[in-house]
Amino acid sequence: MAHLVLPGMEHMGAVVPETMLAIRKKAAAPGAELSQVPTPAPGPGEVLIRIKVAAICGTDVHIYRWDPWAQQHIRPPMTFGHEFCGEVVAVGPMVKGVAVGDFVTAEGHITCGVCHACRTGDGHICENVQIIGVDRDGAFAEYLVMPARNIWHLDPRMPLEVAAIHDPLGNAVHTAFATELTSKTVNVIGCGPIGLAAVAIARWAGAARVFAVEPMPYRQELARRMGAHVVIDPGREDPVARILGETEGLGTDVMLEMSGQPQAIRQGFAALRKGGFAALLGIPAAPMELDLAEAVIFKGARVQGISGRRMWDTWYRLQGLIRGGLDFRPLVTHRFTFQQLDQAFELMASGNSGKILLFPKEVQ
Amino acid sequence: MAHLVLPGMEHMGAVVPETMLAIRKKAAAPGAELSQVPTPAPGPGEVLIRIKVAAICGTDVHIYRWDPWAQQHIRPPMTFGHEFCGEVVAVGPMVKGVAVGDFVTAEGHITCGVCHACRTGDGHICENVQIIGVDRDGAFAEYLVMPARNIWHLDPRMPLEVAAIHDPLGNAVHTAFATELTSKTVNVIGCGPIGLAAVAIARWAGAARVFAVEPMPYRQELARRMGAHVVIDPGREDPVARILGETEGLGTDVMLEMSGQPQAIRQGFAALRKGGFAALLGIPAAPMELDLAEAVIFKGARVQGISGRRMWDTWYRLQGLIRGGLDFRPLVTHRFTFQQLDQAFELMASGNSGKILLFPKEVQ
Amino acid sequence: MAHLVLPGMEHMGAVVPETMLAIRKKAAAPGAELSQVPTPAPGPGEVLIRIKVAAICGTDVHIYRWDPWAQQHIRPPMTFGHEFCGEVVAVGPMVKGVAVGDFVTAEGHITCGVCHACRTGDGHICENVQIIGVDRDGAFAEYLVMPARNIWHLDPRMPLEVAAIHDPLGNAVHTAFATELTSKTVNVIGCGPIGLAAVAIARWAGAARVFAVEPMPYRQELARRMGAHVVIDPGREDPVARILGETEGLGTDVMLEMSGQPQAIRQGFAALRKGGFAALLGIPAAPMELDLAEAVIFKGARVQGISGRRMWDTWYRLQGLIRGGLDFRPLVTHRFTFQQLDQAFELMASGNSGKILLFPKEVQ
Amino acid sequence: MAHLVLPGMEHMGAVVPETMLAIRKKAAAPGAELSQVPTPAPGPGEVLIRIKVAAICGTDVHIYRWDPWAQQHIRPPMTFGHEFCGEVVAVGPMVKGVAVGDFVTAEGHITCGVCHACRTGDGHICENVQIIGVDRDGAFAEYLVMPARNIWHLDPRMPLEVAAIHDPLGNAVHTAFATELTSKTVNVIGCGPIGLAAVAIARWAGAARVFAVEPMPYRQELARRMGAHVVIDPGREDPVARILGETEGLGTDVMLEMSGQPQAIRQGFAALRKGGFAALLGIPAAPMELDLAEAVIFKGARVQGISGRRMWDTWYRLQGLIRGGLDFRPLVTHRFTFQQLDQAFELMASGNSGKILLFPKEVQ
Repeated sequence: MAHLVLPGMEHMGAVVPETMLAIRKKAAAPGAELSQVPTPAPGPGEVLIRIKVAAICGTDVHIYRWDPWAQQHIRPPMTFGHEFCGEVVAVGPMVKGVAVGDFVTAEGHITCGVCHACRTGDGHICENVQIIGVDRDGAFAEYLVMPARNIWHLDPRMPLEVAAIHDPLGNAVHTAFATELTSKTVNVIGCGPIGLAAVAIARWAGAARVFAVEPMPYRQELARRMGAHVVIDPGREDPVARILGETEGLGTDVMLEMSGQPQAIRQGFAALRKGGFAALLGIPAAPMELDLAEAVIFKGARVQGISGRRMWDTWYRLQGLIRGGLDFRPLVTHRFTFQQLDQAFELMASGNSGKILLFPKEVQ
Repeated sequence: MAHLVLPGMEHMGAVVPETMLAIRKKAAAPGAELSQVPTPAPGPGEVLIRIKVAAICGTDVHIYRWDPWAQQHIRPPMTFGHEFCGEVVAVGPMVKGVAVGDFVTAEGHITCGVCHACRTGDGHICENVQIIGVDRDGAFAEYLVMPARNIWHLDPRMPLEVAAIHDPLGNAVHTAFATELTSKTVNVIGCGPIGLAAVAIARWAGAARVFAVEPMPYRQELARRMGAHVVIDPGREDPVARILGETEGLGTDVMLEMSGQPQAIRQGFAALRKGGFAALLGIPAAPMELDLAEAVIFKGARVQGISGRRMWDTWYRLQGLIRGGLDFRPLVTHRFTFQQLDQAFELMASGNSGKILLFPKEVQ
Repeated sequence: MAHLVLPGMEHMGAVVPETMLAIRKKAAAPGAELSQVPTPAPGPGEVLIRIKVAAICGTDVHIYRWDPWAQQHIRPPMTFGHEFCGEVVAVGPMVKGVAVGDFVTAEGHITCGVCHACRTGDGHICENVQIIGVDRDGAFAEYLVMPARNIWHLDPRMPLEVAAIHDPLGNAVHTAFATELTSKTVNVIGCGPIGLAAVAIARWAGAARVFAVEPMPYRQELARRMGAHVVIDPGREDPVARILGETEGLGTDVMLEMSGQPQAIRQGFAALRKGGFAALLGIPAAPMELDLAEAVIFKGARVQGISGRRMWDTWYRLQGLIRGGLDFRPLVTHRFTFQQLDQAFELMASGNSGKILLFPKEVQ
Repeated sequence: MAHLVLPGMEHMGAVVPETMLAIRKKAAAPGAELSQVPTPAPGPGEVLIRIKVAAICGTDVHIYRWDPWAQQHIRPPMTFGHEFCGEVVAVGPMVKGVAVGDFVTAEGHITCGVCHACRTGDGHICENVQIIGVDRDGAFAEYLVMPARNIWHLDPRMPLEVAAIHDPLGNAVHTAFATELTSKTVNVIGCGPIGLAAVAIARWAGAARVFAVEPMPYRQELARRMGAHVVIDPGREDPVARILGETEGLGTDVMLEMSGQPQAIRQGFAALRKGGFAALLGIPAAPMELDLAEAVIFKGARVQGISGRRMWDTWYRLQGLIRGGLDFRPLVTHRFTFQQLDQAFELMASGNSGKILLFPKEVQ
């Protein structure tokens, strides 16, 4: 196999292959393909990362399945994936603070830096954001180019499975810390990986009682493992009645909505106490009916829409959780190689998993 | 006419008539009737107020018309009305801090004081609230009994028309001060009296630009008078396009929703900038369709439901506005006597008015 | 011994002794005396509590020693003490929501309810506050009269040693929750009982790292037991250098000041990161020198003075901590009877204790 | 005079002189000198600005006088000055969003962008900040090089005197908006230009009552002109007594400290109400005595240190004030040319001025 000596790296003898494996969406149709593509080179202010392991997000399942959202947002051919950790193997010109050999992950939202949102601490809702694996090539590949300013350094001792899922953990942190959780009752609706992480964070933060609402038995079990005091199967009992029964009729102080399911959202508001706080991260697929008067107005509720990860506050808070000892490893339930991509995506789509890792070659 | 010497007041020679005029909902049907009823006497911790002037709220129009809301919430026979000012003419046992002769209005929400909301600063959403003129006899009468702890003292020099409308001004203050307005762009949706007061407050607070959306020409004119920079008639132009055009495409920082109209609410969110803040006071009549993903989640919007007046922070802040010099008098556009009640309610229902006052006898 | 049948209790056969034991400050001099005094009777809106156990506060040591603060604030003869739990044995007229047999403690600050602070959610800094055991007779007695609205109900299964110390736990909660602790580095300065409780709360809330600064070896050991990651003896090492060394030179996110020692306060600010938050509860005995420019201004620090317990938010949050499982029992290290009062106060003054309980009769 | 054709500007025929006038601190001694120095050229990511007008800050007076602060912070020879407006005359490579001809001012704090403060929205307290006119050459010159990301665009119709003082107006905005002012009582201590701007902002924001404490008659008069309701001369009356007398004995809701004078700071706290908010911007020259117990702790006060301008929230809020109509022009009282520098600095030092402008050549 031919190798490429990267510019500026000659003295270090650093070489990367001229081509690399990448999981590609080649055409506007369901599925994905493992291909050899040219290895990218870092430009000014950019770094090249060798991916150690990537992870599958629900967004990746949308892209794999080619559902309406994917049809609207994705322009094949492209490499998808945006959750990963890896090692910096080359740095472009004008890069400061990132060096070859660093163990890193990255904020996958590449922001413009000058719009109103970016300039007022809301870069996570930048008007001109480019998301890796959605708007440009992503992390399901052996190598990835990222702007150096998006890099987040990791403790070299951190387990790979935690390092690889900083992106969804960040979503959970952003949602969970939209309000205070310590001593509060918290209702986490939807126990996909982000919901499960939110369960763990709420428990770690000393919530008085953590409720988890989730229809899939596999994920109910994970919710228990991550620390939920009460796991509710909405197919078997009414979550509103159960939560009111467990909260002296008050409802929960906090609702963290991770499901995007209209009925679950309505139930969440019905089980929220007067003056309660709701953070909404799950995305309903379409406009939905909501009784604003009962759900929000008479109740004096506060509602916060959550998108992405607050830069870089979210990242520091996640660091603080991990340093304090919160162990997110149980979130990761399965490991595959890039070659096993179809098996991995099908499992992820089934709901019978937590987080699924994808290794470029062999499972380590 | 016979008079009543009130207990504890004998030494002062204080006398009130044994009966008084009151605007009554006598039956479960449209309309209202002016009747003679017994004058109430204050119990322990209560005071008796001689009403100088009352004002008509939208809620009173619901009761007068006997619409579905009224049919569900009102139990005739009863005296309605809850906006007023007056003079204390008698105090019951164990009352401290309120004296005969005081010029007062009152918080019309009588709270339990011991529920979770009451004990954590959210008395305005008390689980067990009793509202005067809704759950018990109200202020469309010559005399009114109130708990002393609900009394708010007024500067004796305050004009009657401002004194009488502290209740709706308080709703506007509560809504407007749910976030910061100074230097911000603010969209006030719906210019009934509360919306008009919010326009005035936003302008007084130094908003960069105050938009007012209102379909009725009479109220559009009042909105201009209260200080709106831009008044938008949603029947003649698209509020979203107009507001985006006037805000460099960003949308407004703040949305104060006073209309309760589903289409206006959706437009308000569409014209709200990313990271913006929406306070919702207007009550939609029924569950409504909302695109939570676009309106709230992707936008990272914050939403706050508003009910009643925060006790007593709202009242102090209103006091501060008035002391600073904000003049709410232009909100009041018409004056009637109790005898002219049908004329007054019909005008209020037409939308061709600002605030309407009701005087027990002659217009002063 | 004669007994008293309390008014309104005749039908229940409830009797209390006509006199009771109380620890009294009889004269303006050091020391205290155990005496028989008349058992008080509850008036309107009041309840009578049989004290199960009381606890000694630092304030009580000031009173016992008759130091300058005590000389200025205490008017003998009086019964002191303000931390306790007990059982309601009689209720006065017009009491709602509290019944004979209830297991309770109480907010010891009796507020006026009508001053600006009381009416805006700041009752804990009421202009006209009366504190039990300071401004009126307190809890070092067999019976105590309290206003019913000050009562806080306890779970009957709660251990007595936790029930008895809700007052200082509330101070710790009020201080700790003045900002967010989860994922943060927190410096607790001074490990008397309130500081120790703050250590436990910070750890429970998922702080990344909890530092405790305390000169007394006994309390250093307790700080470790309550969860401090790093315990610093300021007599043996420089707290500032140690904390900067452990925080990558940044300093802590949060400082919870419980010592009131000028040098410790200055060190706390020096070890606070830029943009950090300081909650000050410890009371310096006199004006002190502070470099406001370096400690606060250039650093963009936020500082919050803490007095008392926010009513009733603090109480609900403490309830949420206890319900969640935080165990405060290790804070209590010694138990005495009223008869052993001198021994108890001397031990408390020595610093070689955590919280000390005082039982009216036998240690249970 | 020779001219320089700037790289990349050849096609536009843009020329700037090879040398330019600059007010220089040449030696470690009092005074300053007007010199010819080489015109700087913009590097990558930088722009060159032709200064239209600069303004004198108190910091510049420290440098001119060569006081202890200056001796510690300034390394001659250097050009000082940091308040200005001007026109972009050249842009270096890799600059986006700034073009030749733009009317601009700039954030004078050049931040590192990667420290903890920078990455969590606190760039104004960056660990590695470089301030123009202090740490590197500044704005008292005909031309100035700035990083493009520090540029703030101005409305071309904005009066020069407002455009030139965005830096101190930003300090005032940052201080004033540390809490809410609308309907509140506000005490502005120290009426130098920043204090005067804060007076104007508090009045514009609808404060109930604005107090201004200032010993210099010239500035007292300006405080009245900017909108203070009550101007207090601390040499003639006790500010604490006066303010308590004017606030029903409560004290002010808010204190904005701009003087840095220990006695004034202590008086400000004494005149602050319980639960009040103090923003501290003025820099005491040395550690000072403060009664933390009375000033902060018992009072439950909140205190915020203010340094620089929050990026870029402060700038947007200032823009919103100006767009809304707040007129800061009366702050500027004198105009000089660079040649008149000694006269200008002496006047500024005297306290008998508001803001003083310095024009490179003729007063326009």
